[in-house]
Amino acid sequence: MVMGNDFAEQQEVNFQPLMIDFKGRCVVIIGGGKVAAKRARVLLQGGALITVISPALDTELEKMRKQEKVNWKKKLFEPDDLEGAFMVVVATDDPSVNMSVLQSSSQVPLVNAAGEASGGNVHFPAFLKRGKLTLTVSTHGASPILTSRIKEELENRFEPDFEMYVDFLYECRQLIKNTPLSKQEKRQFLHELLDESFRTEEKQQQIILWLKRLAEGGERYE
Amino acid sequence: MVMGNDFAEQQEVNFQPLMIDFKGRCVVIIGGGKVAAKRARVLLQGGALITVISPALDTELEKMRKQEKVNWKKKLFEPDDLEGAFMVVVATDDPSVNMSVLQSSSQVPLVNAAGEASGGNVHFPAFLKRGKLTLTVSTHGASPILTSRIKEELENRFEPDFEMYVDFLYECRQLIKNTPLSKQEKRQFLHELLDESFRTEEKQQQIILWLKRLAEGGERYE
Repeated sequence: MVMGNDFAEQQEVNFQPLMIDFKGRCVVIIGGGKVAAKRARVLLQGGALITVISPALDTELEKMRKQEKVNWKKKLFEPDDLEGAFMVVVATDDPSVNMSVLQSSSQVPLVNAAGEASGGNVHFPAFLKRGKLTLTVSTHGASPILTSRIKEELENRFEPDFEMYVDFLYECRQLIKNTPLSKQEKRQFLHELLDESFRTEEKQQQIILWLKRLAEGGERYE
Repeated sequence: MVMGNDFAEQQEVNFQPLMIDFKGRCVVIIGGGKVAAKRARVLLQGGALITVISPALDTELEKMRKQEKVNWKKKLFEPDDLEGAFMVVVATDDPSVNMSVLQSSSQVPLVNAAGEASGGNVHFPAFLKRGKLTLTVSTHGASPILTSRIKEELENRFEPDFEMYVDFLYECRQLIKNTPLSKQEKRQFLHELLDESFRTEEKQQQIILWLKRLAEGGERYE
């Protein structure tokens, strides 16, 4: 299962992108270092129930533990640690331990082996979130530098205030369902909202107000 | 488990993006229509072993079946159909059947209920692939129009020939490991390759040749 430098090549490019709900799912992280902390941070956002198996914790994980965001079992890995796990993250700095975890994880649906030269059936792509908008970038290990560059480019293109705009589009989509507009008019209207001019809060409030009135049987859009 | 129009709101935005390897994994698709076909198309690219459960197949799925890309069980859904599945895709046009599948799928790790008003723990984001580069867009149902627009924008930004460029970066990253350059020089060099000037095939071939020579102990880069 352990792959060398030709990892990306051997695997071909057949990892498929999905969005997964971790709410209430048990994730076991083997290892207590920086990589483990990085994974824990992302998975916590997704609502995962995280248990860290490791003799020691790095600063960030120790903080999470104190805040009761993660469970910590201060111990070396044993196969029983994986019982009931939805996902296991293999993230120790000892290749032989990592290998042993991989070999014990056949019953775990999702297996992420952090680091390049590893097995597992899950990769974490680089991503950015702007509220309900999620964008991801992955080069399957071909070029981490390119991945970072594209992520930066997207961060500049979709600035933090884009979150508000996506929320606005969402609200419009909900409100428009209750209006007497025809299917085609609705589609046309939602399409028009993609115009740059609807990026200001003032304009957004006008639209929301108008849609609410329309839903209540007020004026039609001319 | 069935959610109404407020799906995106109720769920909050806690779906996490992952890349998953489906090679050799059993996926059961309940339903034989267009949505089922769309999912099958994506999952086949990922190497999934697909079984479709449905009394009838649409044209595209029928073609896949003839090409032996998918298995077809011509029947109505029964809970036993999910045995051993890594993922189930719930995609009939009958809400009561979909509900029944959802209720039977507690042992299936990944559950995708196609359509907006549905449960499950997996969404399929919009995505584009350029060889090893995968980019995804999801608005968690907030604005499918925005999703399409951003996807289009990315398709224009990263044109099909970008695949060749990513392959080039990958090859450079492999070759440079065997050169006598220092860690910092390697990083600097890989960084420089992000410049637009390296998008031409001629330039790429020069670089590859130079790296190969360098790895064999030839000239150093000045």
